[in-house]
Amino acid sequence: MGTLTVDLGERSYPIIIGRGLLSQAGSHLKKCGIRTGSPHLIITDSNTAPLYLEKLQSALESEGFQIVTAIVPAGEQSKSLAVYEEMMTRAITGGLDRKSAVIALGGGVVGDLAGFVSATYMRGTYFVQVPTTILAHDSSVGGKVAVNHPLAKNMIGAFHQPVLVLYDVDTLQTLPDREVSAGLSEMVKHGLIWDESFAHWCRDHAAELLALQPEALEYGLEKGCAVKAEVVSRDERENDLRAILNLGHTIGHAIEAIAGYGEFLHGEAIAIGMVGSAKLGVRLGADPSLETETVSMLKALRLPTVLPGHLSTDDIMSAMSHDKKFTEGQMNFVVPKAIGSVEFVRGISSDMVRDIVDELKKGEA
Amino acid sequence: MGTLTVDLGERSYPIIIGRGLLSQAGSHLKKCGIRTGSPHLIITDSNTAPLYLEKLQSALESEGFQIVTAIVPAGEQSKSLAVYEEMMTRAITGGLDRKSAVIALGGGVVGDLAGFVSATYMRGTYFVQVPTTILAHDSSVGGKVAVNHPLAKNMIGAFHQPVLVLYDVDTLQTLPDREVSAGLSEMVKHGLIWDESFAHWCRDHAAELLALQPEALEYGLEKGCAVKAEVVSRDERENDLRAILNLGHTIGHAIEAIAGYGEFLHGEAIAIGMVGSAKLGVRLGADPSLETETVSMLKALRLPTVLPGHLSTDDIMSAMSHDKKFTEGQMNFVVPKAIGSVEFVRGISSDMVRDIVDELKKGEA
Repeated sequence: MGTLTVDLGERSYPIIIGRGLLSQAGSHLKKCGIRTGSPHLIITDSNTAPLYLEKLQSALESEGFQIVTAIVPAGEQSKSLAVYEEMMTRAITGGLDRKSAVIALGGGVVGDLAGFVSATYMRGTYFVQVPTTILAHDSSVGGKVAVNHPLAKNMIGAFHQPVLVLYDVDTLQTLPDREVSAGLSEMVKHGLIWDESFAHWCRDHAAELLALQPEALEYGLEKGCAVKAEVVSRDERENDLRAILNLGHTIGHAIEAIAGYGEFLHGEAIAIGMVGSAKLGVRLGADPSLETETVSMLKALRLPTVLPGHLSTDDIMSAMSHDKKFTEGQMNFVVPKAIGSVEFVRGISSDMVRDIVDELKKGEA
Repeated sequence: MGTLTVDLGERSYPIIIGRGLLSQAGSHLKKCGIRTGSPHLIITDSNTAPLYLEKLQSALESEGFQIVTAIVPAGEQSKSLAVYEEMMTRAITGGLDRKSAVIALGGGVVGDLAGFVSATYMRGTYFVQVPTTILAHDSSVGGKVAVNHPLAKNMIGAFHQPVLVLYDVDTLQTLPDREVSAGLSEMVKHGLIWDESFAHWCRDHAAELLALQPEALEYGLEKGCAVKAEVVSRDERENDLRAILNLGHTIGHAIEAIAGYGEFLHGEAIAIGMVGSAKLGVRLGADPSLETETVSMLKALRLPTVLPGHLSTDDIMSAMSHDKKFTEGQMNFVVPKAIGSVEFVRGISSDMVRDIVDELKKGEA
């Protein structure tokens, strides 16, 4: 079991990573100052509930916590204002007060939704993340929570830090293969933006990671969380540095939006986006091996690296114009200089971006 | 023209109170760092728009600002998630980005709604308050923003500080008499909780205030804002001290909720609530003159001090159980000790509260 601390002054919190943590949840919550006198709400989804809800709930109840639960349909569709309103109703009817915690049991969708509920119910409650996917190692660190608007993803949200992230790697054993790969996409991203040797480690240990070997998972998750925690600690409100975490996300979010949420998993879309970013890096002067290496790492993790031809370049360009990284009409991108090093580049011409999107359909060079 | 500063470290902001400020809005926004490169959204309501929207919009456009607007129906009904979602759609289609401002032109409803939009659009934009009611001198200071849930008022919200409050007292001249009185209710509340001489000033200058005499308004608003700013500066997140601002609000919110939003103006409901608090204070040991003085001040401002008999005591008690000031099942109240001095009392018996509610129907002692 390892513990990392996300260092944010009075909003600092621990990330605990290990095996068998669900059954110890009660004592971990108590250590974070969450009390048994108020009811607490577990939000989870229809995939996760049958596997882990009872285990978490009874672990907490056996320590004296009063628990109410809400199960949302699995999938990005639950990150909607309609489901958000249902969660608010559940919180009110469950009697939650300002000392209550909202506990997210699940992947990124549940974390984002529950986090926004926690951020805004009575203007803010305690928030606990219990991630059950690899992808969530990314979304559970940093305090960005949100729901989607029909016109754009993650448009409605807040910065709301958890008081605890409890990462039981045993829960990852039930992940479908495609979600394993999609989760590893964010893991290798943390290597690509910050730590060359970790990026190489991800590629070299791809087989163990894909086979969900616990030691490899614990190391990879801890390292991935540590990179994210380091970046977030230096820039909580995403003024500048924190934007580097969005490597691949500008194109990736546009792919998700126009393909209809669901055709691509988030990690798959940003894998294609990271290939696009590498291509941009090479155009702006990086060594061409940057692109081939990026592609080989993503392929080792069984991730897509080519954009399907049926997605219209015009639609992707249009979807990008809603992206939060566009300020005052300029196109801004996180661009790699080499494996393990990126920069935030402002004022990239939309013609160059259009070229890159077209090129992504042709596959790697 | 007077300027107050709400002192919240890096979130400090000015409150500017005076005549003719709408037409100078552009230069005030620029001084607060809001730039012309991004579009900005004015949210106002159907009462305020015909009176002041064009004036504010053209003042801003003449300084180079690009403005989009949204007009919501006047009244508490617009503090709903449905209207909130419409505002998000307007913000997206209007092209707002992270450097944009959401500008609230109106009273407390518009301020709360626009503030919550600003707090959560792209995880937070600049927020500017341009209050056009007396009541808004209270809601525009302190950063509490929210919409209502059908089951309880202000249940969904955030703490989000404005970067500027621009209080043009000329806009108050069009207020209906009933709203003038309701606004003065929060003004005298600031005297009752913090400043005995200001409470007496409000009573002694009731005629000038009710007649909207500009000098009296400027003094009263500045003093009321200053009390609130002082309390908020000492306790931004409402841990303890800030709760005193809720004098009269526990009973007041319950009255509003069960009477149906609209029968009572907020300031009217809390006037009755403040009489209830004074009764509670006397029961807990304060001099009986506390109640008679409180009633005489409220009457001087033409506010109601008696609860209509058709409102059920049971319903009021039940509505109070959803109040955010109830932690872990205890009933907590802000209770006056004397004019100008209050304390937060925990664990008051619900029997005593029920007695007080019944007594409020009988009028003052």
